Amino acid sequence: MQAIKNYIASNKARFLGELIDFLRIPSVSTAQKFSEDVRKAAKFVKQKLLIAGVDKVMLIDTEGHPLVYGEKIIDKNLPTVLVYGHYDVQPADPYELWDTPPFEPAIRDGKIYARGASDDKGQVYIHIKAFETMLATKQLPCNVKFLIEGEEEKGSESITLFLKNKENHARIKADTVLVSDTSLLSLAQPSLDVGLRGIVYLEVEVTGANKDLHSGTYGGAVANPLNVLCKMIASLKDENNRITIPGFYDKVVALSEEERAELNKIPFDLATYKKELGIEDIEGEKGYTTIERTGTRPSLDVNGMWGGYVEEGVKTILPAKAHAKISMRLAPHQEAKEIKKLFISYFTSIAPKSVKVNVKAYAGEGNPFLVNATSVSFQAASKAFEEVWGKRPIPVRCGGTIPIIVTFKEMLGFDIAMMGFGLESDVVHSPNENFSVHNFFKGIETVIAFYEHFVRLHK
Amino acid sequence: MQAIKNYIASNKARFLGELIDFLRIPSVSTAQKFSEDVRKAAKFVKQKLLIAGVDKVMLIDTEGHPLVYGEKIIDKNLPTVLVYGHYDVQPADPYELWDTPPFEPAIRDGKIYARGASDDKGQVYIHIKAFETMLATKQLPCNVKFLIEGEEEKGSESITLFLKNKENHARIKADTVLVSDTSLLSLAQPSLDVGLRGIVYLEVEVTGANKDLHSGTYGGAVANPLNVLCKMIASLKDENNRITIPGFYDKVVALSEEERAELNKIPFDLATYKKELGIEDIEGEKGYTTIERTGTRPSLDVNGMWGGYVEEGVKTILPAKAHAKISMRLAPHQEAKEIKKLFISYFTSIAPKSVKVNVKAYAGEGNPFLVNATSVSFQAASKAFEEVWGKRPIPVRCGGTIPIIVTFKEMLGFDIAMMGFGLESDVVHSPNENFSVHNFFKGIETVIAFYEHFVRLHK
Repeated sequence: MQAIKNYIASNKARFLGELIDFLRIPSVSTAQKFSEDVRKAAKFVKQKLLIAGVDKVMLIDTEGHPLVYGEKIIDKNLPTVLVYGHYDVQPADPYELWDTPPFEPAIRDGKIYARGASDDKGQVYIHIKAFETMLATKQLPCNVKFLIEGEEEKGSESITLFLKNKENHARIKADTVLVSDTSLLSLAQPSLDVGLRGIVYLEVEVTGANKDLHSGTYGGAVANPLNVLCKMIASLKDENNRITIPGFYDKVVALSEEERAELNKIPFDLATYKKELGIEDIEGEKGYTTIERTGTRPSLDVNGMWGGYVEEGVKTILPAKAHAKISMRLAPHQEAKEIKKLFISYFTSIAPKSVKVNVKAYAGEGNPFLVNATSVSFQAASKAFEEVWGKRPIPVRCGGTIPIIVTFKEMLGFDIAMMGFGLESDVVHSPNENFSVHNFFKGIETVIAFYEHFVRLHK
Repeated sequence: MQAIKNYIASNKARFLGELIDFLRIPSVSTAQKFSEDVRKAAKFVKQKLLIAGVDKVMLIDTEGHPLVYGEKIIDKNLPTVLVYGHYDVQPADPYELWDTPPFEPAIRDGKIYARGASDDKGQVYIHIKAFETMLATKQLPCNVKFLIEGEEEKGSESITLFLKNKENHARIKADTVLVSDTSLLSLAQPSLDVGLRGIVYLEVEVTGANKDLHSGTYGGAVANPLNVLCKMIASLKDENNRITIPGFYDKVVALSEEERAELNKIPFDLATYKKELGIEDIEGEKGYTTIERTGTRPSLDVNGMWGGYVEEGVKTILPAKAHAKISMRLAPHQEAKEIKKLFISYFTSIAPKSVKVNVKAYAGEGNPFLVNATSVSFQAASKAFEEVWGKRPIPVRCGGTIPIIVTFKEMLGFDIAMMGFGLESDVVHSPNENFSVHNFFKGIETVIAFYEHFVRLHK
């Protein structure tokens, strides 16, 4: 381990400099205008894998953004770890809320500020540098494959098709999928994710008249799509903040009292939570704690909404159209395809005859996921954290979604190890996203420790 | 009358050409970036009044856009008509829905297409050309004053201050205010407005957390301002489409059965109405007809709404803020100031503790207005229509608002004549706004007939 620590220590500035170069690339996968930059980020990963020492590396072209595949096979009899991550990032707007520009990485108080710093470029780079370190110090204990995609933030459509194609199964065959795309509870208390919520993302359009109408001439006599959409969205939840879509909760499994008690042992201070968010009160499904709500219960959120006159000043119209992007996070056992159908059918059914409603589902729906905590992968991840962080990680349920994880598990039967190195203060998806430099380097050590324990336990 | 007809006929092309020049100026009063163009439109009106033959003309500077004032005093013992109108226009967006650009006037099928063609540049220009014609043919029967403002589409704040200042009262003293800023029922059936609704326009902002939040990490546990705003807006109307703000209807006077019967004699075909708007059903307050709803009942509409991610693709966030522009049209006897207070107080009261709400009222609230149908002004307007259109105009109630009309009436005691020459098919405030060339020229004749009848009846 000393050789590893020495190698990391003597290459610190270079590792960080490379990550900063990676973060400079605005690889926003969801917006067409950044498509060249997304490809640039893929090439960056390919290049860095090559320099780190993979035997084989390639861009695999898809209908969307390319996959980066790399491998180092040292002995076919040894187990194989498949590292999954993504080089694409969320949109960075609203730009004006960033203290420094999202694609001009800046280091302040031990944190790198940039879009994608934590989600997921910083964490992907942990794996590339862990691999380089093991290889350089001759301590790589098994085979490694990398499959890094560029569409995670828009639904992982291409990698899903790739995984579903059996012709690709031999190439990516592995014993475990190692993913770093989540967070730790805190620097003082490491944690391991044992659950992910699923997701369904839709866009709805409500159309009233065939043009914008003067609100004096028509107001009160013709349906206003914005008013109608507000009413429809409002009716998706009841007074207890339960989602009203018929059948929505049918497959949600209630936690036992023991499970709830265990879950609520996770350190959580409501006063601090509210203070950090700047809110006076929390809001969620009646009868559940915050930890239960985000980890084990489904949710429904409007992610964006627009219609009518949104510029400076006044315009007195009934707009012809109103739009909203609506997503649902799914609790374990709910099925994304089914929930999507239930939503579309219900949402269409509650539309008054005075408007037309169109619902479009985005690709990349994801089922929820529960980790098998008795697996070798989970045990190895737990040991690695214990060794490097000096404390046994607490199992936690993450409210987020990594749709492809479920595909790896269901299609290929791979075990999964989710080792997140982010922190809640990283504000992923928000302005001023950041990643702790401390966690970046500690992450490299932890990943290396995982390989050791995994190979040992796998025997 | 023949001299007048001849003069108009021989100057047709010039009149139309000048109107097109007027329409080329993008005088959008509500957006700062057009302020130079708004001034340009004021100067255009000033110049054209001068050429038409006023004795005195000036731009009166204000805190906002200038007023254009002009006068022709032929004999102090004769009555005086004050022409009111506005040279500013509504914003033209969405630009992409225009068949030809909004500020590049185009004539197709006897209609001039341009923003402001009907509301109100085309109608203001009717008055300037009627004045020129009377003067050129030596048939001006009384004194004329023009007061043309540039803030009607954003609330008429400056002209209101001007009218409230008693120092200005001597200058604008008149016997009637003549306004063309509304519509006729149809080419076959002229009409005269006998009522206007009032207006209150507000902008609301709902703030949740101090930043956009990841919808996986926080969804279901923290209030989403867009969901909250939808719920708040939905709760402003009940299941019968009645507005739920306490006290809102207190001053609304119910029509008698006779009044309702009279009102519903106005030609109206629901099937045609729905077909022209492209809707399958109408929607409004239970228990009222469409004509009653727009003419005599108040309304509440979201004119614009925005928040969160509104670009292409997906972004999984709970936005920090949500916004809406909300306006209410007021029925006769409701008071704008009072309704504004009631709205703010109620809207603030229904906000959950999980969000902060900020409500800002725009300037230019306007009280509703009812015309005295026995007045000389109304009678003269009626006779003028009968003479030129060959049919007695039907009295109708307009759903729109001209806030300044109420100020003319209440502050200065002026009689009001509203002679609208627009058509419903003009789609004012919408893309492809247009004005019938036929109505433009017939409007000039009708206005000239009004002067004759007014002076005769005034004696």
